[in-house]
Amino acid sequence: MSKTQRKDEGFRSISPAEFFYRNRQMAGFGNPTQAVYSTVRELVENSLDACEDAQRLPKIRVDIESSLSDTLTVTVADNGTGVPYDQVPEAFGRVLYGSKYDRRQRRGSFGLGVTMAVLHGQITTDSPVLVHTRDDKSSGMSYNILVDIEQNVPVVEEEQVRYRDHEGTTVSIRLRGDLRRAQERVLEYLRLTTVASPHARLRLVIDDSLDMTIGGLVDTVPALPVPSKPHPRAADVELLRKLIEKSEHKGLRSFLIDSFQQVGGRSASRLLRFMGLHPDTEVKALNREELSLLGTVLRSFDGFGRPDSRSLSPVGQDDFHKSVESTFNASLVRFAGRGPSEWEGNVFMLEGVVCYGDEFPAADIPSMYRFANRVPLLYDASECVLMKTLKRVNWSRYGARGSQPAALFIHFCSTKVPYKAAGKQSIAHLPQIEEEALALYRKLGRALNMFVKKKERSSRERKKIRDFSKMFNLMARYGAALAGYDNAPSTSHMVRRLFEGDVDV
Amino acid sequence: MSKTQRKDEGFRSISPAEFFYRNRQMAGFGNPTQAVYSTVRELVENSLDACEDAQRLPKIRVDIESSLSDTLTVTVADNGTGVPYDQVPEAFGRVLYGSKYDRRQRRGSFGLGVTMAVLHGQITTDSPVLVHTRDDKSSGMSYNILVDIEQNVPVVEEEQVRYRDHEGTTVSIRLRGDLRRAQERVLEYLRLTTVASPHARLRLVIDDSLDMTIGGLVDTVPALPVPSKPHPRAADVELLRKLIEKSEHKGLRSFLIDSFQQVGGRSASRLLRFMGLHPDTEVKALNREELSLLGTVLRSFDGFGRPDSRSLSPVGQDDFHKSVESTFNASLVRFAGRGPSEWEGNVFMLEGVVCYGDEFPAADIPSMYRFANRVPLLYDASECVLMKTLKRVNWSRYGARGSQPAALFIHFCSTKVPYKAAGKQSIAHLPQIEEEALALYRKLGRALNMFVKKKERSSRERKKIRDFSKMFNLMARYGAALAGYDNAPSTSHMVRRLFEGDVDV
Repeated sequence: MSKTQRKDEGFRSISPAEFFYRNRQMAGFGNPTQAVYSTVRELVENSLDACEDAQRLPKIRVDIESSLSDTLTVTVADNGTGVPYDQVPEAFGRVLYGSKYDRRQRRGSFGLGVTMAVLHGQITTDSPVLVHTRDDKSSGMSYNILVDIEQNVPVVEEEQVRYRDHEGTTVSIRLRGDLRRAQERVLEYLRLTTVASPHARLRLVIDDSLDMTIGGLVDTVPALPVPSKPHPRAADVELLRKLIEKSEHKGLRSFLIDSFQQVGGRSASRLLRFMGLHPDTEVKALNREELSLLGTVLRSFDGFGRPDSRSLSPVGQDDFHKSVESTFNASLVRFAGRGPSEWEGNVFMLEGVVCYGDEFPAADIPSMYRFANRVPLLYDASECVLMKTLKRVNWSRYGARGSQPAALFIHFCSTKVPYKAAGKQSIAHLPQIEEEALALYRKLGRALNMFVKKKERSSRERKKIRDFSKMFNLMARYGAALAGYDNAPSTSHMVRRLFEGDVDV
Repeated sequence: MSKTQRKDEGFRSISPAEFFYRNRQMAGFGNPTQAVYSTVRELVENSLDACEDAQRLPKIRVDIESSLSDTLTVTVADNGTGVPYDQVPEAFGRVLYGSKYDRRQRRGSFGLGVTMAVLHGQITTDSPVLVHTRDDKSSGMSYNILVDIEQNVPVVEEEQVRYRDHEGTTVSIRLRGDLRRAQERVLEYLRLTTVASPHARLRLVIDDSLDMTIGGLVDTVPALPVPSKPHPRAADVELLRKLIEKSEHKGLRSFLIDSFQQVGGRSASRLLRFMGLHPDTEVKALNREELSLLGTVLRSFDGFGRPDSRSLSPVGQDDFHKSVESTFNASLVRFAGRGPSEWEGNVFMLEGVVCYGDEFPAADIPSMYRFANRVPLLYDASECVLMKTLKRVNWSRYGARGSQPAALFIHFCSTKVPYKAAGKQSIAHLPQIEEEALALYRKLGRALNMFVKKKERSSRERKKIRDFSKMFNLMARYGAALAGYDNAPSTSHMVRRLFEGDVDV
């Protein structure tokens, strides 16, 4: 907001930095515990995105030093792309500034999180963020940056050439926070991060008390999602205006084909015929009513193809199996997936695994671990569409009863995650997402049910075999006694051969 | 954001209008049902605030016309102050622009809600908002306004002198929404609005199908809350810098006394002695470390008085009783209040009533109606601190059992409500609020318990009287028969006199 504030009759404008400073609880910085967790989370997510941009296996180190009782320093170092030097100040010192506003799956997307962490550090300890980065063009620069909250602009306190031994970024934030309470959440967050990003290797060092490395469960970097054109169902007047503005094409038909995904020659022609518009109508000459009508028709026309899933990066069956099996002690892991589908023109997919094992609490509905764009969501579960939908399923039909310890790991990935708040903890209730989640849960429920049934059957079988074995043994002893032998022959190997393959005896 | 966007390596900035356009689910505009409810809500709240500014009994008319199946027009007219003409464009066409950023209780506070309603109308129907307003200086102006989302500036399409017959504002927004599903929520919202603002009279007209007027339950306008100085516990470095900037005082001691509430001569002196700073130290000469230390000490020093509650406007016992009793069919209404207290330097109070009546569901914990700054909160209850704390109370100790239909009406009022999201539906979990809520629930619980006990006792008493009455009647008949009378005398009036006052027979 470079415009200066007006104070006429008390009216004035505030910058987005001031809005989020005033309402930091909305962005995950509402209390000293959450602040530690959110700082780690925002920095780690940025690092993971930067490593994937570089198509490298992420090696991320998180250091937490708690010199004073309630003041700590969080430092996160990665081997990602590094930040272009001329972008460092604004990327870290300006709210709503970022590189991830295109249509593809990313962990970050608001251009808000890291600056919020910087801002929180600044207002609680009066310290600047330290950024040390190296991109592919030179050998390193370091910066001390504060945020001018009123103006929402970065203030660079120091900037100097400083060697960094490989590409990547190190960010260090000093903040007031409650490490003792936050520590468990941070650990859980990192552990679950390696479930959804099993290719990442994370090292966490806390003072002298903890040094652990987790992850690196697979050794291929997921393909970078491809930015996609908007889907026609996203066509509101605002989007149409923007697309027309940058469009060089004059004809309406080719404008539609070139600007949107899933619009082919045939569907474009059908649509224009339906609207009574000529295919060569100059798109920049459309009047307001025509534009509005075009949007309505694009959103409601059902002749388009399925949305493009190349802009997404699901975990996938193999990796999801591997990561859950190596992170949790589970005896059943079954994968299922749904989609691609779309909500208001934003492509999404749902995938998940169902697990069975003593590590999970036995309850009437399975426990759930939620992920969005490979990020674990730890707070505000009860208002999340994934959780609300979970409760709509009749789990007793799927063998989930009080005595069965089952868990679901559910990953929602989309070119845009409809978070309920800027703190990114729960997903809004949209009918398309609910519908797909319900279908996914039923798929996973059937897998769970088969497993539970088989387990029950197998325990019945085992009893039958035990009974048979006892009788067989008696008969053998009886026969042996009749035949005058002192020792009856062992029968257990015979029983085993008899029931081989039926069940583990 | 008047700065043009930079496209270097994909980095760019987005305006707050674009942020909330992209993430409108965060501001309560996530689906067609919520959009109708939020549009009504934002306009009504603005109207109520404007009427209170004018210190008039609010008379607000809400018209909903649904010409097309999924397109409707919401019009809200009030008798408030009107909007200064030169402020109309920005007040309705710019996100994060408002007149309510001072420290006192208001319904609105973000400078976001109404512009979000305008923005949602615009992107779904391509229609401008119509504003017709009259302030105390002239006789009326009308405007058609759109939002330039990319720049976050208003675009005035039309502006003309137009007579309005009294002071106030009429706002009309055309939007796509689902009225059928939203109608019940809108009705509930308005009904509960009259509970927390019983002085307001609301008329709702929907097409030709509904015309109802509610409210006007009391006829005094609540005193306008007074803007307050910040409480020292709000003193972070950012606030200190701002206060020092506008301070003309040079001495630290008088700076503290003049800039903060609850800092008197004695506490200021004690505090400065503790910090080892001279009372006359020039405040503008403080260096960074001293400033940071000053903040820390101000926040943790416990020698300040209780926060000033004149910046708040609680409903109060009489009005709360009246409004709940006339809105619900309840047989017990008991009031309790807590505070004033503060969270991070923001003053707050909690008050509530407990009710008993068949209108409420019988459950193990009472139903709850939540209010924040006189605004009913209808969504996202389960993540709200008021609800989470409610579940921590052992209600069986207070006579709330499955068979008892009880309800709580809880009002949180504060100079700042820590909403979890811009959609203003649930309050963040802060320890100070939780503590006060717990204490309030226990107070209300004890009132409920006494009522339930008395009710049980009275039903036992009634049985005793019935038994006695039966025996007495028998004896009378027996005596009459012995004495040779044909008809035994009636005894019920004697029994009644005997037990008079004990219980209703």
